[in-house]
Amino acid sequence: MIIPVILCGGSGTRLWPLSRKSYPKQLVDALGPLSLFQETASRAAGGPFGKPIVIAGDDYRFLIAEQLKTKGIEADIVLEPEGRDTFPAIVAAAVLATKRSPEASVLVMPSDHVIADTVAFQAAAEEAGRAAEAGDIVTFGIAPTRPATEYGYIRPGESLAVGKRIETFLEKPDAGTAKRLIEEGCLWNSGLFCFKAGALLTAAEALNGDSVAAVRAGVAEIKSDLDYLRLGESFRKARKISFDYAVMEQLADRAVIPVSFPWSDVGDWRELWNMSLQDADGNVAVGDVRLQGVTGSYVRASGRLVCVLGLEGVAVIDTPDAVLVAALDKAQQVKALAQSLDREGREEAKVHSRVYRPWGWYQTVDLGGRFRVKRIGVTPGRQLSLQKHFHRAEHWVVVQGTAEVRVDDKVSIVRENESVFIPMGSVHRLTNPGRIPVELIEVQTGAYLEEDDIVRLQDDFGRA
Amino acid sequence: MIIPVILCGGSGTRLWPLSRKSYPKQLVDALGPLSLFQETASRAAGGPFGKPIVIAGDDYRFLIAEQLKTKGIEADIVLEPEGRDTFPAIVAAAVLATKRSPEASVLVMPSDHVIADTVAFQAAAEEAGRAAEAGDIVTFGIAPTRPATEYGYIRPGESLAVGKRIETFLEKPDAGTAKRLIEEGCLWNSGLFCFKAGALLTAAEALNGDSVAAVRAGVAEIKSDLDYLRLGESFRKARKISFDYAVMEQLADRAVIPVSFPWSDVGDWRELWNMSLQDADGNVAVGDVRLQGVTGSYVRASGRLVCVLGLEGVAVIDTPDAVLVAALDKAQQVKALAQSLDREGREEAKVHSRVYRPWGWYQTVDLGGRFRVKRIGVTPGRQLSLQKHFHRAEHWVVVQGTAEVRVDDKVSIVRENESVFIPMGSVHRLTNPGRIPVELIEVQTGAYLEEDDIVRLQDDFGRA
Repeated sequence: MIIPVILCGGSGTRLWPLSRKSYPKQLVDALGPLSLFQETASRAAGGPFGKPIVIAGDDYRFLIAEQLKTKGIEADIVLEPEGRDTFPAIVAAAVLATKRSPEASVLVMPSDHVIADTVAFQAAAEEAGRAAEAGDIVTFGIAPTRPATEYGYIRPGESLAVGKRIETFLEKPDAGTAKRLIEEGCLWNSGLFCFKAGALLTAAEALNGDSVAAVRAGVAEIKSDLDYLRLGESFRKARKISFDYAVMEQLADRAVIPVSFPWSDVGDWRELWNMSLQDADGNVAVGDVRLQGVTGSYVRASGRLVCVLGLEGVAVIDTPDAVLVAALDKAQQVKALAQSLDREGREEAKVHSRVYRPWGWYQTVDLGGRFRVKRIGVTPGRQLSLQKHFHRAEHWVVVQGTAEVRVDDKVSIVRENESVFIPMGSVHRLTNPGRIPVELIEVQTGAYLEEDDIVRLQDDFGRA
Repeated sequence: MIIPVILCGGSGTRLWPLSRKSYPKQLVDALGPLSLFQETASRAAGGPFGKPIVIAGDDYRFLIAEQLKTKGIEADIVLEPEGRDTFPAIVAAAVLATKRSPEASVLVMPSDHVIADTVAFQAAAEEAGRAAEAGDIVTFGIAPTRPATEYGYIRPGESLAVGKRIETFLEKPDAGTAKRLIEEGCLWNSGLFCFKAGALLTAAEALNGDSVAAVRAGVAEIKSDLDYLRLGESFRKARKISFDYAVMEQLADRAVIPVSFPWSDVGDWRELWNMSLQDADGNVAVGDVRLQGVTGSYVRASGRLVCVLGLEGVAVIDTPDAVLVAALDKAQQVKALAQSLDREGREEAKVHSRVYRPWGWYQTVDLGGRFRVKRIGVTPGRQLSLQKHFHRAEHWVVVQGTAEVRVDDKVSIVRENESVFIPMGSVHRLTNPGRIPVELIEVQTGAYLEEDDIVRLQDDFGRA
């Protein structure tokens, strides 16, 4: 039995504006109908794999739960009180795995990678599982397809019963070095790990006992909160360090399984273009796109018509509130751009115009001097908090489904094509008691129309 | 007295997506707060200039009237039943000018040109007026600033009392020829003309008597319609031909006034970039734009954030419903792109998402399976037609101003933050009886939500 551990952190800067701080890369449907996270979770389902452990941040927990639910995958979703890099996260997963079974093996997978061949991946995972049985901490080494400078490399040594001993880890090289490393048989460092949870904890304790103790305390303090397991505050005391630095580079008993399936960490728009199916001109076009005299480009529309004319090697990413046009060979700079927008407090760096909530989502569709128009979707069986606003009144027009609306002490059913008025200051609540999603148009009027004008009197999701 | 004649036709393809078929280039605020049309009308106001005659198409007549009103300019707005190129339009203007005064001189100006020096322009216009007094048909020849291949050229001959005789008109040359023509002292053909209306009609009658007769008949059939003069159906019989071909190239008595003010016909995005104030990197950025490692580019946002990274010589034009990304040196191909979108029946080629009407405007801000959300603006004192819809109900929420709403036989006043429901099939009307614009959010629900589901029972603008 191998327990998949899915690392679901991320800052949402590299594929901006499709990814956002509260909607990172792994949650984006970058390569098809499923998100990278959903692909990852599906890749390690069935066969030798047990119920996965997902380690994630607080910001996008609802989306993670929703995306798993959509795919029918059950998982333990473990929330960190703060991101402490991969070492504490993986240790926490290992502790949880030993609670399921002292003999459990663990397969650690970042949630934002693309692996194009699931069969080859699962075969490699089983091989890694056998190597882990021997007590090794195992990683996957990807056969390089080009002299990449954005990945670390692994130099393999002597052959083991399964896989090879790891001789050294090599930092991201320059292009010349990368070429030489490939000639010497080095492999890309994938960030995929496999080990017996108990063996990892023993090794980690010897290397970094205080941090492991902090993580163990955090796990002991775990509180169940709706669909989630919240690690306790002690977790924050664990050292912020990557698993590579803290463990892999320090150990003797470490092995690499060389693999040759197509793999990418989708580190920028250029990589996504690389991994996507290109047409005869080397273009990838998603959505309502026209290309004329365009080659080697990635163009993505989301609603609007996007036309590109006479260019080579560009990324054009259209979203409802932000457009990015970038040279693909400068795509690595998108991260810094998104970070600088975030520092300036721009909303476009933080959230999408469609904002996900535990009860559904909302999206601002129009905004004027004294009014805001939102489209709101409520999941069947869910309800928003019981709330009031001091500075705005709201008109709701139901355009799909049937809503139950409470205004002060009056509860009424509002059907498609019916409307209801929420006066300023009145206590109200929106519920979807039905079997299909409710959608409604909300017209807010008032002098102050920001999200923080809300008093929550009761909430199903612990936000009151 | 010189009567300015402003030619306000155009197909809206060259500056797509900022210009549209029903919102052509001259109506766009391409270079500042005023549209090119408003700049043109302002250029020939006061001094020796009389009340202008504007020749335009039916599609955007409301916008023309509105833009003139905004600038406080009174004009005769003459609507062609169909565009027949410049010759019939200019003849119609000449006929109307002779009705004002048999001795009138006329200055013909396309409405979509940029002329950066109004003082120099007016001085040249007065000079042209003196040449016209001598009976010549006069054009302006612009001193070339580069070997342009997109303009026709004029070879000047012997000097006259004012200006020079025109020796030949030369078609758009290739780059090598253009260079040689400039060395030989040739000038750009501007499309600006000046003549005595009577002299022009005499010349035109000799050259193309049938067409002049058709135009005269069209003028005789003129009907006044609100703010407009509608040429009669006979106008359609005039030959569809340009003034250059029909008159200028055929005549002996033609003169050119050489001028050297900065001039452009803003034939594409590259020209607009050329004529705009560029920063130290050669960039022009309009709206909420971020540039990083970008040079020699024109980037225009309209609401959304637009980021461009690591590119040279591109145009990025963002509008609510369409985005164009083009190499500036391929900007001439935008015209063909817009035409092909039009042939396919794409709305984005025809109208903006904000559609102008005689009573104001509307804009679709959201669209779902069975609903559409519009923002509607109604000008003070105007009202929409008395109408009904078979397939949709409407909810109106007033977010600014005070509306008068009739639903069947009931008339009520709807104030800011109040709403009203229009059931399917009921006869209704929206009026702005106040002094400030009314804005409202309309939520339409129903199975069919297109503009053609409308029965107009009465209309102030002749559309019932």
